[in-house]
Amino acid sequence: MPSAPRLDLGPFPDAYGYDDAIAQDRDDPLARERDGFVSADSDIVYLDGNSLGRLPVDTITRVDDTMRRQWGDRLIRSWHEGWWELPERIGELLAPVVGAEPGELLMSDSTSVNLFKLAAAALSSAPDRRRIITDDLNFPTDLYVLRSAARAAGAGQRVEVIGSDGVDGPMAAIEAAIDDETALVSLSHVTFKSGYVYDLARLTERAHEAGALVLWDLSHSVGSVPVELGATGADLAVGCTYKYLNGGPGAPAFLYVRRDLQDRLRNPIEGWWAHDDPFSFHLDFEPITGIRRFHTGTMPMLSLAGAEAGIAQVAAVGIEAIRAKSVALGCYMEQQWRRHLEPVGFGWASPTDPNRRGSHVSLSHPEAWQIAQAYREEAMVLPDFRSPDNLRLGFAPLYNSFLDLHTAVLRLRAVVETRIHVDYPTEREGVS
Amino acid sequence: MPSAPRLDLGPFPDAYGYDDAIAQDRDDPLARERDGFVSADSDIVYLDGNSLGRLPVDTITRVDDTMRRQWGDRLIRSWHEGWWELPERIGELLAPVVGAEPGELLMSDSTSVNLFKLAAAALSSAPDRRRIITDDLNFPTDLYVLRSAARAAGAGQRVEVIGSDGVDGPMAAIEAAIDDETALVSLSHVTFKSGYVYDLARLTERAHEAGALVLWDLSHSVGSVPVELGATGADLAVGCTYKYLNGGPGAPAFLYVRRDLQDRLRNPIEGWWAHDDPFSFHLDFEPITGIRRFHTGTMPMLSLAGAEAGIAQVAAVGIEAIRAKSVALGCYMEQQWRRHLEPVGFGWASPTDPNRRGSHVSLSHPEAWQIAQAYREEAMVLPDFRSPDNLRLGFAPLYNSFLDLHTAVLRLRAVVETRIHVDYPTEREGVS
Repeated sequence: MPSAPRLDLGPFPDAYGYDDAIAQDRDDPLARERDGFVSADSDIVYLDGNSLGRLPVDTITRVDDTMRRQWGDRLIRSWHEGWWELPERIGELLAPVVGAEPGELLMSDSTSVNLFKLAAAALSSAPDRRRIITDDLNFPTDLYVLRSAARAAGAGQRVEVIGSDGVDGPMAAIEAAIDDETALVSLSHVTFKSGYVYDLARLTERAHEAGALVLWDLSHSVGSVPVELGATGADLAVGCTYKYLNGGPGAPAFLYVRRDLQDRLRNPIEGWWAHDDPFSFHLDFEPITGIRRFHTGTMPMLSLAGAEAGIAQVAAVGIEAIRAKSVALGCYMEQQWRRHLEPVGFGWASPTDPNRRGSHVSLSHPEAWQIAQAYREEAMVLPDFRSPDNLRLGFAPLYNSFLDLHTAVLRLRAVVETRIHVDYPTEREGVS
Repeated sequence: MPSAPRLDLGPFPDAYGYDDAIAQDRDDPLARERDGFVSADSDIVYLDGNSLGRLPVDTITRVDDTMRRQWGDRLIRSWHEGWWELPERIGELLAPVVGAEPGELLMSDSTSVNLFKLAAAALSSAPDRRRIITDDLNFPTDLYVLRSAARAAGAGQRVEVIGSDGVDGPMAAIEAAIDDETALVSLSHVTFKSGYVYDLARLTERAHEAGALVLWDLSHSVGSVPVELGATGADLAVGCTYKYLNGGPGAPAFLYVRRDLQDRLRNPIEGWWAHDDPFSFHLDFEPITGIRRFHTGTMPMLSLAGAEAGIAQVAAVGIEAIRAKSVALGCYMEQQWRRHLEPVGFGWASPTDPNRRGSHVSLSHPEAWQIAQAYREEAMVLPDFRSPDNLRLGFAPLYNSFLDLHTAVLRLRAVVETRIHVDYPTEREGVS
């Protein structure tokens, strides 16, 4: 691989869209939020915040204090000085971001384990209903986990995967599929590849009409798209904190259970953190009331503490302001794609309606695998590749600027025009 | 509560056992290991390493690098630069500590979630066998989780809790209980309250004679007592890394599956980290071969990286040397108890045979709850309280000295002799 970039890395002041980017950045009320992140002004254009958000400056202080003072000096005493309650406390911080109330959200385990716990709990509560409805735009692990949860619930329920055209969610087919045999509807609120945003209110209502529960995976929407869990009466949700919440690599996930359901559902992995009196060490399990009922075992405190600063920032800025910038970034991206990228062979593999689009888009290209490598190595833009032919570009409203997108688009065009990507391997080798 | 200690905090050079402590510390081949921990020479005598181990100095560097460079600067690229393999890599580091081979150990989730996964996998593999054998010395959450796993396996298996006298494990009763109706035997290798060490080889052999599987919880033995998983042919094990491995608060746990079982058991929570080709995003789950098959979702990297230094230190020192010092510390403790503490009303609520005793002991006293508080607040010794009347004292061979134990014993006697503990609340209020 070349040791130095072979491309013009800009700025590109004469190109279409440059003045607009500069103007929008100047008027951006969130422009200063970028200062809250480490290395946000490095030479890298980072468009993968939908996979791993940037490191907030405040996180360093928080993790350092947790490690050196709380663990190193206070030792075991820290369990009584904040650690034990931290999963709920961060849950309270996050609650308004997804329209939930305090006491309805808990930091817990990984997204997959949380999905298992809530899905199995839901399925066990409706053993007479046979069907679990999802779609083929869902993150595939959600399908695996839903099937695992169905096995654990033991009621013979089956996961039915509604087909899509690959970009827009199959709303009508899902609505038609939901019937009085349906136990659970579980979808990604924003789909991981195309960025399609489901109408959470409408599907929740439809499920409730049929007497089914809904379980939303908010991983790609939390912190980028408003989520009206409370207003829509959504039953259950899970999500990760390491994308738009900037919680850190693999940071603990969250789960949401509507308050009136909390004491009616049974956690399928009952552990001492969910016990009503955990330090009595009774041999029999007695569940605590409330959201802690869905805990299992001890939480990883460095990673948990590391998630707090990012979540606090999102909560402080407010999801409406974040969404407004995200929509503007998406519209700008589409305009730039049409002018600079469609002519060189990129398809738009995301919704065109801004109301149905999250904070990332996929651009399709038959040589996307090679392009992704050249883009990273020579253009200093970090995208994602998603099989089979998608270059996935995320725009994180807290630190991505309009100029970031302009620069990224022009560099992408340059990669394809110079065809330097053809020097890169065509075969997928390991993780991209 | 008083603002300054009301006790003589030593040293106590005239007291019985002092010269012996000094001599044993002088001859201790592990004495310098203490320098590898933060604040190990503070005024606190820390006897709760069996609950939360101290912070290794090297952990600070490791977490800092993971946070600032790997996350902050390398961003998403770090997933291909070590993060994805880290759970297996740390597993390889830990393997010799428990007598396992590389590829048999994986860092994953919490101890409770791992116990659920392995127990449910084992139970599903033997649906015709009805019984799960455990005991009442097991950490209670293990009982809750075993019952959860039995529900998930769906074969109607029941957990049978063999009663003990409260200190020694009921070996004979367990051996007698294991029969050809037994699916699984699951015990804590070292019990959490009394520190009793089960004969892992003998019970594993007995279970295998009957055609049952064994699942050991190594939380209180890993890093303090040799565990011969490979030599005994043990089937399954789980354990935590935040006690004698000094992995940090709530650090990710580990799971062990004997190699020949790995591809015969089914992970009950199949997630993308266990997929054969996770980045192809297939809608169907295809399990990878080997130990990664028992992964589920994304691991918390700050906490995972934070566990490595402690585990590396234990592996480098070697479990035999650690055990030798632990036994010596335990014998010294018993001698000191007999001289200084038995006369003032403390019972020995742990095994007397050093071969059957782990690296912590429980001292019973009817006023243990009050004593624990005074001990912490006025004597600067950090113990644990375990219901109903146990003061639990752990000695971590890597950083506790014989003088630590001598000092702790004399201060404990002083608390009881001066009766300053009667100023503290008698009722349990929250976590102690």
